Amino acid sequence: MPELRKDPVLGRWVIIATERAARPTDFKSEPQTSQSAFCPFCRGNESKTPPEIMAYREPGTAPNTPGWRVRVVPNKFPALRVEGDLGKVGYGIYDMMNGIGAHEVIIETPEHATTMAHLTEGNIREVIWACRDRLVDLKKDRRLVYALVFKNVGFVAGASLEHTHSQIIATPIVPSTVYREMEGVQEFFRYRGRCLFCDMIQQEVSTETRLVLDNPNFVAFEPFASRFPFETWILPRNHASHFENIQRIEVDELAHTVKTVLTKLERSLENPPYNYVLHTAPFNVADLEYYHWHIEIIPRLTKVAGFEWGTGFYINPVPPEAAASYMRGVEV
Amino acid sequence: MPELRKDPVLGRWVIIATERAARPTDFKSEPQTSQSAFCPFCRGNESKTPPEIMAYREPGTAPNTPGWRVRVVPNKFPALRVEGDLGKVGYGIYDMMNGIGAHEVIIETPEHATTMAHLTEGNIREVIWACRDRLVDLKKDRRLVYALVFKNVGFVAGASLEHTHSQIIATPIVPSTVYREMEGVQEFFRYRGRCLFCDMIQQEVSTETRLVLDNPNFVAFEPFASRFPFETWILPRNHASHFENIQRIEVDELAHTVKTVLTKLERSLENPPYNYVLHTAPFNVADLEYYHWHIEIIPRLTKVAGFEWGTGFYINPVPPEAAASYMRGVEV
Repeated sequence: MPELRKDPVLGRWVIIATERAARPTDFKSEPQTSQSAFCPFCRGNESKTPPEIMAYREPGTAPNTPGWRVRVVPNKFPALRVEGDLGKVGYGIYDMMNGIGAHEVIIETPEHATTMAHLTEGNIREVIWACRDRLVDLKKDRRLVYALVFKNVGFVAGASLEHTHSQIIATPIVPSTVYREMEGVQEFFRYRGRCLFCDMIQQEVSTETRLVLDNPNFVAFEPFASRFPFETWILPRNHASHFENIQRIEVDELAHTVKTVLTKLERSLENPPYNYVLHTAPFNVADLEYYHWHIEIIPRLTKVAGFEWGTGFYINPVPPEAAASYMRGVEV
Repeated sequence: MPELRKDPVLGRWVIIATERAARPTDFKSEPQTSQSAFCPFCRGNESKTPPEIMAYREPGTAPNTPGWRVRVVPNKFPALRVEGDLGKVGYGIYDMMNGIGAHEVIIETPEHATTMAHLTEGNIREVIWACRDRLVDLKKDRRLVYALVFKNVGFVAGASLEHTHSQIIATPIVPSTVYREMEGVQEFFRYRGRCLFCDMIQQEVSTETRLVLDNPNFVAFEPFASRFPFETWILPRNHASHFENIQRIEVDELAHTVKTVLTKLERSLENPPYNYVLHTAPFNVADLEYYHWHIEIIPRLTKVAGFEWGTGFYINPVPPEAAASYMRGVEV
């Protein structure tokens, strides 16, 4: 069982994988992404993953056989385990608990596509629905309070398989970054009585300098204080704190927006490594007036070094206005 | 002039380099560390750096000529600029100011050594004194409230030159990570009336499982909630919030401790890329009962991916107890 340990200084949690305790020699040379011909995520290789949790599949096809369009399976090397209780304990001045949680993989297509931008809009819609359906289901587990949906593309960004997929990690604690985001926007709300993200949308749409896309239900822009070159955020225009309450008409437009933004990004930077992360409100709170779900896409082009680790400052060599102007100019 | 921009959600600051605005094509392939024969930090190449700010040198030798043992120069490509005023302005809902600050390089030896562990203890003492002297001098500039001393070793960890060196970036704002560290330990102090770091030292020394070194004035251990495999902290046993107030006898022992820890780390992991960061209290506060300066060393062996970016959670495959046991066993 992995352990969840709390840093007493920053209140940050760390998952310590006590079982597969790597030896120092495991780190001596850096492994590269496996480029072998065999891919466990491709159609026909269903038996090479743990049994599926859910799939959207053709009528009459059996679980764990071909016929699926989007498929969700447990991660074969999970960071957290589903079985057991939290077992919260103190250890002198330290706090820890069992590494309870869910770690799932959303296989986005049975074809060996390497990026989401190559999928059809219909396919991306089903990926969005799969995320939404899994969040609604995970929410029922009272031990879990948060689910993070994220995607790693490229070795530099932490991907170990190239077949396009997303991941969900559900945790028994609200992560410190999410907690701080909520604190930050709550302070703004107390002072102004408005959602900070709604204000950002209004300012970005009216000034246009950092705007990438402006659709009826979604906007995409490069944030004013972008940490990374070509960092891009996608936000729903209509205020909503919880992604899983998305309207059907919004799913359709989100699929279009995601495909357009990722295509522009890949053409601007020639298939960069990147991460995207869905920021949504915790399971255990009702609708919030001050929090606004959104997607953050961060290309991994610059190195994070001692200065960033020590301070939380970032150095970004590309002004977001320059990146947005470039992105707007890319034909899709 | 670079810009300092504040993320309104998290209160985090970003340095936007508006001048050397990189084009997207600059990122299309990842540059590697320059391994050319020429090194601007080696003895005899003093004219290839900006003029020195200070140096410890042999009597009778002139500035910017050979004869130095440790030399501090401005960074040739500074993240922040020394000249100008802060020019704080609002921009709708956003806040920004001029990128005022100092960015200096401490060249640790005139020889082309690639790691601090290869330096003599006497040499490392002078590096520590140089850091201390620069902090005391930078503190006089009323625009600056913080100075971060850090080191990047290896390309993966963000180093662009292999000749062993450290850097100092002094900023007009207290960085968010430092601010949060101070908040966290202040809360502990309010509740317990003790310094959290002093408590950590006591627990680590008495349990020994995560201990690497236990000297009269310094301890080194793997923190309970290590984010990274072989993450190692060095703390002074005597409570002190500001590094620059270090006692002379402590400098001698710190040099010995740093050399021993880095040697153990390099032998354990065969010269891993790593960062180290000095965490010390801001310039603009007096001695603090609740904050304790320390050095955090983080080997860069694991990838930081979407999950870490989205949550502030870390996944560490090596329990700190296993890493400490290994480190203790390495002969120096």
